[in-house]
Amino acid sequence: MKSVLSLVSVFVLSSLLSTGFAQDAAKGKALYATCIQCHGENGEGNLAKKAPKLSGQHDWYVVKQVTEIKSGVRKNPDMQPYVKGLSDQDIKDLAAYIVTL
Amino acid sequence: MKSVLSLVSVFVLSSLLSTGFAQDAAKGKALYATCIQCHGENGEGNLAKKAPKLSGQHDWYVVKQVTEIKSGVRKNPDMQPYVKGLSDQDIKDLAAYIVTL
Repeated sequence: MKSVLSLVSVFVLSSLLSTGFAQDAAKGKALYATCIQCHGENGEGNLAKKAPKLSGQHDWYVVKQVTEIKSGVRKNPDMQPYVKGLSDQDIKDLAAYIVTL
Repeated sequence: MKSVLSLVSVFVLSSLLSTGFAQDAAKGKALYATCIQCHGENGEGNLAKKAPKLSGQHDWYVVKQVTEIKSGVRKNPDMQPYVKGLSDQDIKDLAAYIVTL
């Protein structure tokens, strides 16, 4: 029985790690609270805030854009203050939540 | 009868112009042919090409991003060659088509 358990955990761990994307959508949900004011509770976006729809977007794209806005590679002075304090893991967790919207 | 017709046409014209968005999705579809190689026939996006999902996105956001990528305000050396020849109207028509995906 023990060997089955360890096999399962190796499988789960490796599939998580292989995606290079160990993510925690629950943490992401808490982080997303800040984003609601512009992107909306369901990631529907907001014209007045020039905030795009996020729901349905790929997590790898969300990670890329938030990372680049944080670093300034992508200029977005409106959004940068909201993401500059996020760690790489925070951004992955955030993306994992956004994918569920 | 004539006055009704002119009233209707004024309404249609003003609603088009008021959105500042006289768009032609049919023209947009022809323009989108170039985008398929990265964003996919249905705007589903493509990880290998780092191309985001477009379907479901707001047309005003598509216009903003394509315009900024064309001008270089938003750095995207991969995509800029594909959009630099587009006119403002082309971009609006393209967005009108993408919204239908």
